[in-house]
Amino acid sequence: MTDLLLRGGRPWGLGSPADLLIGDGLIKQVGPDLPQGDAQVIDVSGQLLLPGLVEAHCHLDKTLYGGAWVPHSADDTLAGRIGNDLGRRAELGVPSVERITALLRTMSSFGTTHVRTHTDVDPAVGLRGIEAVLSAAETVPVEVQQVAFPQHGVLTNPGTFELLEEAAKSGVFAIGGLDPAGIDRDPVRHLDLIFGLAGRYGTHLDLHLHDGGSLGAWELELIIERTAALGLGGRVTVSHAYALGQIDEAQQDRLAQGLAAAGVALATAAVYSFPVPPVKRMRAAGVTVACGHDGIRDLWGPYGSGDMLERAMHLAYRSTFRRDEDIELALEAATYGGARALGLSGYGLAAGCAADLVAVPSSTAAEAVVTHPSRTLVMKSGLVLHN
Amino acid sequence: MTDLLLRGGRPWGLGSPADLLIGDGLIKQVGPDLPQGDAQVIDVSGQLLLPGLVEAHCHLDKTLYGGAWVPHSADDTLAGRIGNDLGRRAELGVPSVERITALLRTMSSFGTTHVRTHTDVDPAVGLRGIEAVLSAAETVPVEVQQVAFPQHGVLTNPGTFELLEEAAKSGVFAIGGLDPAGIDRDPVRHLDLIFGLAGRYGTHLDLHLHDGGSLGAWELELIIERTAALGLGGRVTVSHAYALGQIDEAQQDRLAQGLAAAGVALATAAVYSFPVPPVKRMRAAGVTVACGHDGIRDLWGPYGSGDMLERAMHLAYRSTFRRDEDIELALEAATYGGARALGLSGYGLAAGCAADLVAVPSSTAAEAVVTHPSRTLVMKSGLVLHN
Repeated sequence: MTDLLLRGGRPWGLGSPADLLIGDGLIKQVGPDLPQGDAQVIDVSGQLLLPGLVEAHCHLDKTLYGGAWVPHSADDTLAGRIGNDLGRRAELGVPSVERITALLRTMSSFGTTHVRTHTDVDPAVGLRGIEAVLSAAETVPVEVQQVAFPQHGVLTNPGTFELLEEAAKSGVFAIGGLDPAGIDRDPVRHLDLIFGLAGRYGTHLDLHLHDGGSLGAWELELIIERTAALGLGGRVTVSHAYALGQIDEAQQDRLAQGLAAAGVALATAAVYSFPVPPVKRMRAAGVTVACGHDGIRDLWGPYGSGDMLERAMHLAYRSTFRRDEDIELALEAATYGGARALGLSGYGLAAGCAADLVAVPSSTAAEAVVTHPSRTLVMKSGLVLHN
Repeated sequence: MTDLLLRGGRPWGLGSPADLLIGDGLIKQVGPDLPQGDAQVIDVSGQLLLPGLVEAHCHLDKTLYGGAWVPHSADDTLAGRIGNDLGRRAELGVPSVERITALLRTMSSFGTTHVRTHTDVDPAVGLRGIEAVLSAAETVPVEVQQVAFPQHGVLTNPGTFELLEEAAKSGVFAIGGLDPAGIDRDPVRHLDLIFGLAGRYGTHLDLHLHDGGSLGAWELELIIERTAALGLGGRVTVSHAYALGQIDEAQQDRLAQGLAAAGVALATAAVYSFPVPPVKRMRAAGVTVACGHDGIRDLWGPYGSGDMLERAMHLAYRSTFRRDEDIELALEAATYGGARALGLSGYGLAAGCAADLVAVPSSTAAEAVVTHPSRTLVMKSGLVLHN
């Protein structure tokens, strides 16, 4: 295939315009005024170039995206939302390959190139969600990692652990967890079970932790201890981690040091009015912070567009980031931070990286987050998807 | 001018499709299958019709909208933002008729038909902001109410009170106020001064109240007492009222009853992570709740699009509204609630109302808020601005 020469763009972080030579799915060369040679030129003059956006936390299997509007039907309690989800999945045909495909296509059109999705695994749905996401992902140029997710508990939902193990055996990327104390009522046993699976099958681990305040903070300590003891650094993510937004700054710093030292990443979605981990403080301590939507148009809530620049805006906004350098931390979470949490290699805008990128007509990265404008170019593995 | 017949739309709240006959700037008739007569037909089949959107709290005079991206340059303190604002206004040409006009045009394109804006009045800028907003408003089909706003205090900024009085004499719609305790250090004197002006000159009153917790709650009591004593019910709005989001439910209910009885409205913007008044609880008690953007692309922060459907989404999202009936409360704030706070008459979708309306391709009002799609029709005073 002919090489492509992206002419005159402004790669984020480079400081000056540069051309990118694309070939064999890779960024072959980056520099000013590259010779055209046999390459086909794509003019991206004045455009800001970002690496492919990374959706680090969503629930593709639950989505109703692309169908008619479904008014939310649960009451205001967590139990109500769980019951609503279990009760209406069949009626609404969830999980649906068609809906998942529609959402993945939208994500891709916004420049998302990598997705980590938490897929329900429980005795009611079995591994059907995993299979539906696999089928959908085959047809859209986005790399999808699945987390086998015990949405309704492990210990409290008999048969779930065995299904998680089956998912691990069948090659799922990560094992999930859920509020070891708040939902599963036995944090030590919950964590030992899922860390055991991750260690045994060589998967990543990505836990939902909504448990707040000192309880959630203590569970983070348990997670840090196990990650360090089992040598799983770089393979463990805690999603949401509301507790980090509810404790004092001294405690935040102590946990940040622990997370950074053990190699535990955070994924945040900045949804509703729920607490957001202190992104700037976490990054200053060297903690990897990733960003995702959480649910998109599903039985848990009707919000979400699939646009990771818009989601980064929500993260920056809830973090009260006003200055460009701060707003860029949210974009970092939606790009490089997500890539680190997902364990991606060859990610970025340097020569040798995969040619996954997106162009926007923004003067700065912060402006791209705040206005999340239409994408002028989306490229995955060197293929132009949208221009 | 020829009458217009909007055919087949779904007026919000009506329950079934209806035609609207528009003439002389008014909605003349609403009903199914209206006869065409001499009217020109506009097909809005399947579209949801909303009354014109009401932006109840913004700062047009400060905006940098439509110009190049200006990275935010203040530090993270309130004092830093105030200093940044005062220091850079001249350099950036604020207030700018051109910038204000650009923002008003964008607001109008999104279907906003009424705007209340808080315009800085102080010895440094004098009444130039008021004049700039007046000039811009003359050229855009949006009705603009100005609040003479003492951004840098009344008591703490000598000369400001006299300028507020001058603004009142010259016909400004409302007198503003700002944190009578937190900024101006003497809540009783601050409130007596501005309530005195409003009473004397027959203006509305619209106070910024960021003061939180029990201090802000107590200031709300002072405001309720004065509104009742002076018979200013229906003419007083408290903007932001963060304190209402920080006190317990019993206190919220007690203040809600006081606000409703006295006829004090609330305006909220749901910005950043700042507290949001409990909208559902306030509405249940009969308190008028309005919604606005607060600053849009200015020296105080870089966010804001001018789209009131998107802003209603932020309000619904921060309120953790998931069900349609709840999300509609946010839209109510961006329409009828705003209209009540602004004291508009002839507002709505009934026969006899001003023909200010907007059409969206949404199946429900909640969907319109969540997805805030492109407008398919915007009409102001019977004139089609966008179709």
